[in-house]
Amino acid sequence: MKNWSQFLMPYGQAVDELKLKFRALRKVYQNQGEHSPIEFVTGRVKPVNSILEKMQRRYIREDVLETDMQDIAGLRIMCQFVEDIYQVADLIRQRNDMTVIEERDYVSNSKPSGYRSYHIVIEYPLQLIDQEKKVLVEIQVRTLSMNFWATVEHSLNYKYQGEFPEEISERLKRAAEASFMLDQEMSEIREEIQEAQRYQYDQQQG
Amino acid sequence: MKNWSQFLMPYGQAVDELKLKFRALRKVYQNQGEHSPIEFVTGRVKPVNSILEKMQRRYIREDVLETDMQDIAGLRIMCQFVEDIYQVADLIRQRNDMTVIEERDYVSNSKPSGYRSYHIVIEYPLQLIDQEKKVLVEIQVRTLSMNFWATVEHSLNYKYQGEFPEEISERLKRAAEASFMLDQEMSEIREEIQEAQRYQYDQQQG
Amino acid sequence: MKNWSQFLMPYGQAVDELKLKFRALRKVYQNQGEHSPIEFVTGRVKPVNSILEKMQRRYIREDVLETDMQDIAGLRIMCQFVEDIYQVADLIRQRNDMTVIEERDYVSNSKPSGYRSYHIVIEYPLQLIDQEKKVLVEIQVRTLSMNFWATVEHSLNYKYQGEFPEEISERLKRAAEASFMLDQEMSEIREEIQEAQRYQYDQQQG
Amino acid sequence: MKNWSQFLMPYGQAVDELKLKFRALRKVYQNQGEHSPIEFVTGRVKPVNSILEKMQRRYIREDVLETDMQDIAGLRIMCQFVEDIYQVADLIRQRNDMTVIEERDYVSNSKPSGYRSYHIVIEYPLQLIDQEKKVLVEIQVRTLSMNFWATVEHSLNYKYQGEFPEEISERLKRAAEASFMLDQEMSEIREEIQEAQRYQYDQQQG
Repeated sequence: MKNWSQFLMPYGQAVDELKLKFRALRKVYQNQGEHSPIEFVTGRVKPVNSILEKMQRRYIREDVLETDMQDIAGLRIMCQFVEDIYQVADLIRQRNDMTVIEERDYVSNSKPSGYRSYHIVIEYPLQLIDQEKKVLVEIQVRTLSMNFWATVEHSLNYKYQGEFPEEISERLKRAAEASFMLDQEMSEIREEIQEAQRYQYDQQQG
Repeated sequence: MKNWSQFLMPYGQAVDELKLKFRALRKVYQNQGEHSPIEFVTGRVKPVNSILEKMQRRYIREDVLETDMQDIAGLRIMCQFVEDIYQVADLIRQRNDMTVIEERDYVSNSKPSGYRSYHIVIEYPLQLIDQEKKVLVEIQVRTLSMNFWATVEHSLNYKYQGEFPEEISERLKRAAEASFMLDQEMSEIREEIQEAQRYQYDQQQG
Repeated sequence: MKNWSQFLMPYGQAVDELKLKFRALRKVYQNQGEHSPIEFVTGRVKPVNSILEKMQRRYIREDVLETDMQDIAGLRIMCQFVEDIYQVADLIRQRNDMTVIEERDYVSNSKPSGYRSYHIVIEYPLQLIDQEKKVLVEIQVRTLSMNFWATVEHSLNYKYQGEFPEEISERLKRAAEASFMLDQEMSEIREEIQEAQRYQYDQQQG
Repeated sequence: MKNWSQFLMPYGQAVDELKLKFRALRKVYQNQGEHSPIEFVTGRVKPVNSILEKMQRRYIREDVLETDMQDIAGLRIMCQFVEDIYQVADLIRQRNDMTVIEERDYVSNSKPSGYRSYHIVIEYPLQLIDQEKKVLVEIQVRTLSMNFWATVEHSLNYKYQGEFPEEISERLKRAAEASFMLDQEMSEIREEIQEAQRYQYDQQQG
């Protein structure tokens, strides 16, 4: 039997470091009086029982866990506008302290369920006591309303295992549409908002 | 001239204690496998320049600042569902460590601008080094999508001082409608979601 | 079998609130340019296996755990000078948000082992979701060098169950003497230091 | 006039990342039931007025501040035993995410004042929004009792600018001796303590 606490420790450390780094970026934008593409950042290490369940479902052996399960360490970056998502992806790509392994754009191409998010898998070099170790981290970038919808869908999916009753399926779709509409209205008002935010900053400095 | 750092210190302390207390409530619900009416909590002390600006605008004298400006300390509690807002208000009313001074329900009666939120002003007893001091704190309770809209409106309002150009005013209204629709869709799907969350918890415990 | 996670939750919450409150006091002193009797604050909830071990050793039944085991929640306040310890005890006695239940002065009357610390057991009212609950918390107040010695003695005691070999016992006593001497030298230099700290503060403000 | 808030931001970020990284090391040792050479970690960015004062005193021009003032970002690592200090220095040297620029051993060769500490200046690569930036950080490694003494000496030095009255100078020396003796007693008892800590860990694991 695996010593899970030992195995998961580097993942926890990677999540902590990355949360700190992306939150620091937000502060830099704010300090310069610019719109931050990052609204807030959360992170988690996948609980052991979820790892075990996914190993079974996807036929992943324990000895290839580190390479074949990409979301043991997970980071979520929430944005105000859809446009910010792509800017965050750019920021990640040009960093020297991590390497992008894979990207999946479920924003332009939402899943049939209605799920929207931008997924980036990175390789993050971590300094342990006596060596360096590279761990995979999945970063999900999404707007606040994408996040809201996804949280709800996740709970329901857990129960129904993807086999939603007709009525629930319908309601989820209507909620996805409302979420999409909210993002669209926000995008249209976006430049106006950003100019207002710069104005607000200048006034507060002045 | 006021020593602002000294004056604002108790407000900062009140905000810190209240953030801790309401975040602890969330953990209690989660630990019991129940839906938490509290999704997340933020807080802030009003910046000095905003206090000065509001003093001028509302004709508030410095010597009555503590009683007449109720939002120097501000807490924001975000909820998943509209129904949770009223449950959070109940939670606040029945606590022994604070006293409700005033309530304003802009959820049932949204402002003409489209603004929705539930405001509660409390009096919070704070233990200083050698005495107890009561400070006022404004708690705003809202759903995630109310919060999203309000953030945007706040930025724009700051610039235009409430005198929005026609086009922006129209867009803000459409965004408010999209936000309202999202909340409604979520409310309808709510019981289903909560049952699913309980199910998810039981599975993870089991 | 007890649901420990549920049982210990209020204790964790009490520790969190008290850490926040005593750390805030320190900031108040610093902000006023005065010597803070509180240097730093740590806290912990007793681990389940230590609770079980102590129940056996002291014949404490599970149904009287809340009243008969006073250190399930523990706070430690570290001071720069011996004199600060008594000032911290005063601060605790005059607060309205907790009640002192018991005090034991192992500073003036050190234990035969050499252990020195001031112990205060308080009753702390905690606001749960639907009721108030009073929990006992043990606060240990000590200088940095008392703390250093105590940490070491605790580790050794755990192994030898109080039955130290002669040589170790001798060494512990010599360390206790060195720790005591350091505290004494510091006390004598104390007024000088405090005046210097006030001077430093005035310069930094000016 | 320099925009200090902008200039100091990367230093603050470096301090935050390094605190997180060294605290994580401590957890790794604890998780393995081994003695951690790191007891606790603090950090700070030098206040602007101290930077200005040091620029004057040392004739450092603003344009060479980044290279010529090595302690704008400062980290302090506290150890239980003198021996741990050298182990921490080893840990720092073998890391890939920082480069050692300079080392000064005031532990083996204490300053005439009685000051003891191990100083390491590192270069730390920081990822900003659009580029990498290397910042200097001074890491001071010391035992708890060295730290206690140094804090006191710092306050006094600030006031007297190094010109201590005879009596104070004498007292500081006696305190330095008491601090040194405490460290020596602890070192002699060290192997015993570490074995006891391993024993305690094994028992708690069951």
